[in-house]
Order: sequence, then C-alpha cells, then structure tokens
Amino acid sequence: MTRFRLTLAYDGGDFSGWQRQRGARTVQGVLEEALGRLAGGRAVAVSGAGRTDAGVHAIGQVASFDLERAIEPGALSRALNALAPEDVRVLEAARAGPGFHARRCAGSKLYRYVLDTGPVQLPTRRRYAAHLPRRLDPEPMARLAELYVGERDFAALASSGSSVETTVRHVRRSELRFAADRVVYEVEADGFLRKMVRSMVGGMIAAGRGAASVAALEDALEAGDRRAWPAPAEARGLTLVLVRYPPEALAS
Amino acid sequence: MTRFRLTLAYDGGDFSGWQRQRGARTVQGVLEEALGRLAGGRAVAVSGAGRTDAGVHAIGQVASFDLERAIEPGALSRALNALAPEDVRVLEAARAGPGFHARRCAGSKLYRYVLDTGPVQLPTRRRYAAHLPRRLDPEPMARLAELYVGERDFAALASSGSSVETTVRHVRRSELRFAADRVVYEVEADGFLRKMVRSMVGGMIAAGRGAASVAALEDALEAGDRRAWPAPAEARGLTLVLVRYPPEALAS
Repeated sequence: MTRFRLTLAYDGGDFSGWQRQRGARTVQGVLEEALGRLAGGRAVAVSGAGRTDAGVHAIGQVASFDLERAIEPGALSRALNALAPEDVRVLEAARAGPGFHARRCAGSKLYRYVLDTGPVQLPTRRRYAAHLPRRLDPEPMARLAELYVGERDFAALASSGSSVETTVRHVRRSELRFAADRVVYEVEADGFLRKMVRSMVGGMIAAGRGAASVAALEDALEAGDRRAWPAPAEARGLTLVLVRYPPEALAS
Repeated sequence: MTRFRLTLAYDGGDFSGWQRQRGARTVQGVLEEALGRLAGGRAVAVSGAGRTDAGVHAIGQVASFDLERAIEPGALSRALNALAPEDVRVLEAARAGPGFHARRCAGSKLYRYVLDTGPVQLPTRRRYAAHLPRRLDPEPMARLAELYVGERDFAALASSGSSVETTVRHVRRSELRFAADRVVYEVEADGFLRKMVRSMVGGMIAAGRGAASVAALEDALEAGDRRAWPAPAEARGLTLVLVRYPPEALAS
C-alpha cells in the first residue's frame, strides 16, 4: 500500500465543485473514477486540501490517497492525465509518507480572486474573473483587507449550514492590487470557512461601492453577525493557487 | 442611413469562425441577427476587418454596417450587448463616415499567438493557448520571425482554396517572446492570407523542434511552395488584437 500526493489544476466552470456528490460532476468524483480504473475496479478514496465550490478553479490543489498497486509517480501522473477529462490535470505526483493527509496536514492555503471592473468584460476572461462594471474606491477596500489579517473569529463570513468546530482562522496575508480595469486579491490562511474568501471579497466590494462603511463591517465581523455581512462574490473569480505543508508532512 | 463602426471582442471557442455560414454559429451571424432585431426585422449586412477562423479569438475586431434607425452609439452598444450572446461583446460603438468599411479601410492588423510549452497545460489556459509539451530552440524561431518582416510573397503560407488577387503582404512587425513555459508571438501586417499567422507559427514550431532548418523554410517561402511548408498551428492560440485605420478613414 503506498500513499500518494498529487498537485492538481482544474477549470471549475463545468464542475459542481470538488466534493463527490451523487449525480453531479465533481473534481473528486472524476479523480476517484480514474483512480478506480487504475486500481482494477477497487474504490479509491481521495482527500483534497480545499473543498472548492462549483465554478472555483485551482492551479495548485493538493490531493492524497492510497494505492495497493505499485506504480512510479511519473507513470501515475501520465496515466491519470490520460484517463481524466481535460479540465482537470495532474501537474505532479509524488509518494507521500503514510501519515500524509492533503487536508489535515496543510499548513496554509493561498487563494486568488480576480474582479474585472471595466464597462464591458472581455469574453475570453469571463470564465476566470468576476465582473462588476463600476468604480470601486480602493481606500476602504484596502482597510478592510488589512482588518482581515491575524487570528480572528470569522463567524460573520461563514456560509450558513457549515458545521465546524471553530470559526477562528489565522489569516497570514491579505493583499489587494488595483490595475486599470481589474482588482486582484490574494489571501493566505491556515484554513478557510465555507465561502469565506468570497465573503471577504463581498465585504470589500460593499466597502468599495460605498454600500457599507468599514466601521459597520468591522462591527459585523466582531459580532459574528452573518446577516449583517454582504453577499459572497461570484465563484468564477476565485482560484486555489497553492497549499503549503510543513516540511515534516512532506517527508515520505 | 447611418454607418457605424464597432470594436468587438469574442471567445472564438464556440464559434465556427467569423463568417456567416448557413447552419453554423458564427460571429457575423449572431451580430447580424441581433442587428436585424434592432432594425425591426430588416436585414443588416456586417463587414468585419478580419475573417477569423473557428476557435480564433478577438479582443479588437472591427466591424461596420449601416442602420436606417437613428440611435446613439452608446445606446447601440448597450442594446447589442443585451441581444448578443455572452461570448461576443461590443467594446465600443461609433458613428463612421459613409465611406468607412471595416476590412477595405484597415491599414494593418495585429495578431497574437500564445503557445504553452510546459509538460502539462493548466486547464484554465486551454481555450486560449495552444499546447506543445517540448523544448523549442529559440534561436531558429527568432531568425524565422525576422525573415517574415517586410513586403514579400507569402504564397507558401496561404491556405489552399483561398482565392486572392495577390499573395504579397507587408509584415511590419514580427516579434517572439520566450517565457519559462510559454512562447508569445505578435505579428502586424497590412493584411493576412487565410491561416497565414497560424502557418507562420507552424513554421517557427518546426524550426524550434529541429524538424525543418531555417534555410529550408526560407527556400520554401521564396519558392511559394505550400507543400513544403509545415502545418498551421492550432486555432485556439490565436487572437486578433487590434486593427489600425488611417486617420482619414476614422473621420465621420
């Protein structure tokens, strides 16, 4: 029995998210199907570092699973890319230690959100960036991005229906860049609640439009008040960029 | 009767190219349909600066047509974007002089070709870049790019079946950029033969792989020998970036 670690990229536009669901096309589902074929029909359970939602993309998702069959990582990667559909690709395969688990061992995850703000969005960008054709004030947006940094309770940004032990997360980096017709947000944390990044962006959009003051948003954040928090931004602008692991987790 | 000029962007992936064809979804076709509705059912003939092939994208295509109905350019642009499908967008609409014709008045066109050369292509790039997972030697590719510059007979690069008065074109700029996992080619000319840019790239790929020497390709180019020229590169890597007009053509 060997444990493997995959680095994955996918275009989330035609997937109902990461997580296996009966009757829906999901990234975990198509990977488990391909691995099942490689394992001669035996079921293979895949764990992903981030459970991305429908429409969310990845260029550095990480997954782990066990295979009984002995196979070189390079051959595994080629075989999976031959079996899997073109909108999910294995960028790298590696042997992992028996204790490695893509989600539980993850030290931090980095997400990027792209928002086009010009009057008309280029059709070649519409799958990979959200579109909001209006002027956004960078100053309150940057103040809110700064407020997210540190260890805090993000209950106000948790999607309803998510059940987690704690809504405290440690945000290590939260950076906004403004270009002529585009806003790019990058955020890295030890973990994220369901739709948390999109809610962070939703809050910044509300601040940038002047629909909510930074003070009011800070109050809602501190009170953990979900109903006072703006709606999450569209899924298509979000990409899981990178998952970091502590060196001991990567030793095989 | 007023003549209009549109600047257009489209994702060519789901279009059978620019040119109207019975039973096929084309950019000209969906624009003429939308304009026909705006014109109260009257047929509107649209001319495009470049007749892009199936799968080829545009961020700066230009089109011209006449409307009997008086309408402000801003309102025309909004109405067309409301009627047209999301994979084609009007970036700008303007009144044009009665002599303006998007193709006949064009001074030059700029195309960009993107080729991913890494081992595995990111799924989020597969609609907008070709993929060739191999090392390409930049030196012969750059020499060939240089050879294309100037006024010359490009008969060797003309797609069979195209009927044109002359196969002489004036290439003003032909530039290759090499990044880690990507090659980007930009070429500007007074006009292009059918599949000419993709054939230029096909020639450079053959030179970069060592499948053809620059000397042999130069001979084929000078002899106008289509059969000796490598196959055109894939459509999905190509984008019509910009159409330039002399100032007198833009006076309305």
